[in-house]
Amino acid sequence: MEEKKDEVGFAEREEAIWARKSWESLSALRLRRPLIQCITNFVSMDFMANTLLAAGASPAMLHGLQEIPDFTPYVSGLCVNIGTLTADWVHSMKAAAAFCSQLGKPWVLDPVAVSASEFRMKACRELVGLRPSVIRGNPSEIIALSSASLGATKGVDSSDKSTDAVHAAKSLSQASGAIVAISGAIDIVTDGEQVIGIHNGVPMMQLITATRCAVTALIAAFVAASPSNIFVATAASLAIFGLAGELGMEKAGGPGSLRMHLIDSLHGLDEATILSRVHIHSLS
Amino acid sequence: MEEKKDEVGFAEREEAIWARKSWESLSALRLRRPLIQCITNFVSMDFMANTLLAAGASPAMLHGLQEIPDFTPYVSGLCVNIGTLTADWVHSMKAAAAFCSQLGKPWVLDPVAVSASEFRMKACRELVGLRPSVIRGNPSEIIALSSASLGATKGVDSSDKSTDAVHAAKSLSQASGAIVAISGAIDIVTDGEQVIGIHNGVPMMQLITATRCAVTALIAAFVAASPSNIFVATAASLAIFGLAGELGMEKAGGPGSLRMHLIDSLHGLDEATILSRVHIHSLS
Amino acid sequence: MEEKKDEVGFAEREEAIWARKSWESLSALRLRRPLIQCITNFVSMDFMANTLLAAGASPAMLHGLQEIPDFTPYVSGLCVNIGTLTADWVHSMKAAAAFCSQLGKPWVLDPVAVSASEFRMKACRELVGLRPSVIRGNPSEIIALSSASLGATKGVDSSDKSTDAVHAAKSLSQASGAIVAISGAIDIVTDGEQVIGIHNGVPMMQLITATRCAVTALIAAFVAASPSNIFVATAASLAIFGLAGELGMEKAGGPGSLRMHLIDSLHGLDEATILSRVHIHSLS
Repeated sequence: MEEKKDEVGFAEREEAIWARKSWESLSALRLRRPLIQCITNFVSMDFMANTLLAAGASPAMLHGLQEIPDFTPYVSGLCVNIGTLTADWVHSMKAAAAFCSQLGKPWVLDPVAVSASEFRMKACRELVGLRPSVIRGNPSEIIALSSASLGATKGVDSSDKSTDAVHAAKSLSQASGAIVAISGAIDIVTDGEQVIGIHNGVPMMQLITATRCAVTALIAAFVAASPSNIFVATAASLAIFGLAGELGMEKAGGPGSLRMHLIDSLHGLDEATILSRVHIHSLS
Repeated sequence: MEEKKDEVGFAEREEAIWARKSWESLSALRLRRPLIQCITNFVSMDFMANTLLAAGASPAMLHGLQEIPDFTPYVSGLCVNIGTLTADWVHSMKAAAAFCSQLGKPWVLDPVAVSASEFRMKACRELVGLRPSVIRGNPSEIIALSSASLGATKGVDSSDKSTDAVHAAKSLSQASGAIVAISGAIDIVTDGEQVIGIHNGVPMMQLITATRCAVTALIAAFVAASPSNIFVATAASLAIFGLAGELGMEKAGGPGSLRMHLIDSLHGLDEATILSRVHIHSLS
Repeated sequence: MEEKKDEVGFAEREEAIWARKSWESLSALRLRRPLIQCITNFVSMDFMANTLLAAGASPAMLHGLQEIPDFTPYVSGLCVNIGTLTADWVHSMKAAAAFCSQLGKPWVLDPVAVSASEFRMKACRELVGLRPSVIRGNPSEIIALSSASLGATKGVDSSDKSTDAVHAAKSLSQASGAIVAISGAIDIVTDGEQVIGIHNGVPMMQLITATRCAVTALIAAFVAASPSNIFVATAASLAIFGLAGELGMEKAGGPGSLRMHLIDSLHGLDEATILSRVHIHSLS
């Protein structure tokens, strides 16, 4: 009886600490207004830019290979997303990622549909070799990329089991040095040892294109604003985006209006709402 | 008197049958959740993806030539739209269309502004040669493409007369083997013999960019979910998108809010609404 | 006392005249429905097209180099925006701009982030040499471009002071022959001699991506509809877009809903609202 009470008390205290950290991370982002370069797919650009602006960051969709040596040294962080990949974009992604790694700037990789082709998998493996700060994907993407990064000769079949994905995420994190985040009904973040679960968000967010692309860019912004604690910043950005979706859902009549209310909610988020509604728990 | 009653009765029964078929087509789409590859113009990508998601399909905006041999064999259908055409995109469109034709997968062509240049007309003629399942265009696009496909030495002048366009559409359908759809105040669908008119939609939909691009992708999704009856699936998708626009218009204060409410309405469409409000009639 | 009254009376009459001219400019646009070719960045395409449609213009996002000789001669105006620049797009921009200049068609340049790289600055200098009708930028962009166009060996450091920017804008206007517009809390327009300030708009418009890209396209549409008075058309478009933002803000709960209500408001603007709420004053 006493033990059970203690466990409940511990879980409540842990959740309160994470909620406080999430608010501090958002406050740091709003204060520092980081400039985030996004080399991303065409579908996501509008929603990604509006997500970054609503959160308090400054987006820059600039991908020309010739411009990267002049521009990338001045950004606070970089988001690379391979959604609509072609060879010329891979060159730009690698050049910008290499600059960030050399200069100690955070950058985040979204391996969209990494299993769709050999070309895409090869590009992702090379990008992982350029030491992203964070990799965020769906379970099947993380499993495929983890398997490939560990030198398996054949890709693991696509799967949505989070238990499989947690194992894969830990391995990928250890092999790459990146924090790894898995999106799902419960979002998961791991640094290769610790594993936490984020319980914010609503299912209808998956019916809005590029929501997961947008949250990857948001991770880049949170991490750029709090570079000394990438693990916390990653968890906070997932929780806060999910919470904005929950608040948006209270007003939405479908995916069209959810998209709009999510952006409004992200812009308007205050301390009291975050402290009472962010739900992050340790899973390891 | 009796005859008139019979005619009215026949028209009513015909309309009820089409409404029932439209509901069945949407139900098949929602059940099968087809994966639709879209090689489309930059302007349309966001709205097209959100339209497909709201209807129940799964969009994939993937256009890299290197990826098509790995990816296209796994899709349920393909939408090709030439809106922001350049030479490299033509290669990808032709490669993906050829895969679909070889593999018996449905694909749909949107010949946006086909008369804008010789380059565009040539690309469209080649795409028509790869045997699209459906071609959807505006009257002037269908007239121009029909004339070109029939070997006329000079393009017919652009025209919006639906009577001219119906003739052109039938010819284009017979020459190409595709179902041909014409968008307008009344949408028209023909298989070269039968001609039907779809009376759903509102004029303000034309003030939202990419609505017609989006409905072409929706045709691809409907056809992919019901490949055994492409004619019906094409008509159903046009009626249902138009109906979503009508429902959206009841709440909209202008084209910005119509865009949002259209997506919400498409997502929420139910059987009773479709049975009472889809209006399709035979014209031939 | 009498003098003060006269000044107030003069300012009121001046403001009323500008409001009347703004309404006339919008009426000309709605009447003529100009076809505006947009060679613009990927982020802006959707919102730019919807802005043009809501105002009454007809957008055409067509950028293929091979198509420009066939297509550009038929447009009413051109908007060039360098946001997501690469070398192939520069070729298209220059080709389309050269056509417009040769044919006496208005075209408008948006030098987005011109200081971001040498590549971008070089492209902009070449575009300025092709005699745009209007250049619209932020203060730092206009200062950088003005300095470069005047042959300064080193770019002026980025600055947001409108006083500096006014001087730079006048110089840029005199050197290029273009009307120059500066966006800011107060928008400024100059022909190299006259300087006017436009007091419409709300700060939250800056939290919507591509609002300034969209207003540049709107300038192209206004100028194309009233080519005999480019100075007035430029001022009117900035005032009317700002006013649509003000009206949208009355209903908005954040940047997501502002974006939607701005488009609705732009579409619905009427004479009485424009006459009572457009605020343009002479600054020179």
